[in-house]
Amino acid sequence: MSLFSRKKSISVQTIRRLPQYLRVLYDWHGYGRELASSTELAEETQVPAIVIKKDLQAVGAPSKMRAGFKIRGTITAIENFLGWDNLNKAFLVGTGHLGAALLGFSGFKNHGLEIVAAFDTHPERVGHEIHGVQVYHTAQLKSVIEEKKLKIAVLTVPGAAAQGITDTLVACGIKAIWNFAPVKLAVPKGVAVQQEDIASGLAELCARLKAR
Amino acid sequence: MSLFSRKKSISVQTIRRLPQYLRVLYDWHGYGRELASSTELAEETQVPAIVIKKDLQAVGAPSKMRAGFKIRGTITAIENFLGWDNLNKAFLVGTGHLGAALLGFSGFKNHGLEIVAAFDTHPERVGHEIHGVQVYHTAQLKSVIEEKKLKIAVLTVPGAAAQGITDTLVACGIKAIWNFAPVKLAVPKGVAVQQEDIASGLAELCARLKAR
Repeated sequence: MSLFSRKKSISVQTIRRLPQYLRVLYDWHGYGRELASSTELAEETQVPAIVIKKDLQAVGAPSKMRAGFKIRGTITAIENFLGWDNLNKAFLVGTGHLGAALLGFSGFKNHGLEIVAAFDTHPERVGHEIHGVQVYHTAQLKSVIEEKKLKIAVLTVPGAAAQGITDTLVACGIKAIWNFAPVKLAVPKGVAVQQEDIASGLAELCARLKAR
Repeated sequence: MSLFSRKKSISVQTIRRLPQYLRVLYDWHGYGRELASSTELAEETQVPAIVIKKDLQAVGAPSKMRAGFKIRGTITAIENFLGWDNLNKAFLVGTGHLGAALLGFSGFKNHGLEIVAAFDTHPERVGHEIHGVQVYHTAQLKSVIEEKKLKIAVLTVPGAAAQGITDTLVACGIKAIWNFAPVKLAVPKGVAVQQEDIASGLAELCARLKAR
């Protein structure tokens, strides 16, 4: 199944592996390395070399030479494919434990995401900063989104509040929602929702534990 | 590909969908409902009804009757498959932003996981409680693991510290590690590592945004 009917077909699995490659490639690039092989990249990730080759081809990485592939060119190809060569301005709704943790992550900027505003309804948080990000009242969503030209919403509200906030976001013209609330969001066609489900990873681990 | 060569083969994808089903089934069960159809479950999740049918069969849920499947029996079958009918005692290493957020989640007990201890090296955290969980010094890992009979490690340390801690955990006999640090861990055969990679979800969302 592919998300990209209008573009060339790239699987979700490929897309989800790209950040793993990037992480290793950034490291190597930082050490001054210029060339690497998919076998070396396979050793540093949990991905077979043959899959890596196909993935890199799919995102248009410069084709492999006998000596390996060019690290810098491959980084550029992946960043470009994901749109991580430009920063997407994002905001976060819900500054509870998880929301605050995400605001504290410094790594998002390497991944094309800059969280420039946060929203909440709690009087003790509104008007303050969390990890340097200003917290606005949720009632200000529309005006702040427009003023700051925000594109991506990170949703870390309780499940019961998620759909209501989503309806507001859609009304404000937001087209991409990264949803950490444990509910399925109803959105109109044309709005992308990426569901993060922490329980899925836990299920996988528990099933492995039981299977041994 | 299946994780379970020794048992009947269940795909990772099936396992990762099970918590979604459980969430809806818990809700329905809470409202006093007894029967449901896979079509109804499909409406509440993002999963096609035919896939749901196969998944429920695979984990040994009571077979479907004309009126639908039994909600209580299906919950029991999934919980039993995942081992979520018994609480696994877990501990968390690294009480930074993300670690503290995970300690604050109340939902893990519904997922067979009880975090009963935390570890860190920061003097201002060791000896205190975070969300009711006692923080010990990392030097006490071995004794606390043995004393409390802990089974599952949740790893929320910085990337640079992750492998060192992992080596200690393996030496303490830990067989299951839920890894939130952005590095690949080297572990001996027989130790299950579940890698959570928050950047993968972000990559998916960004690729969708770019594809439109």
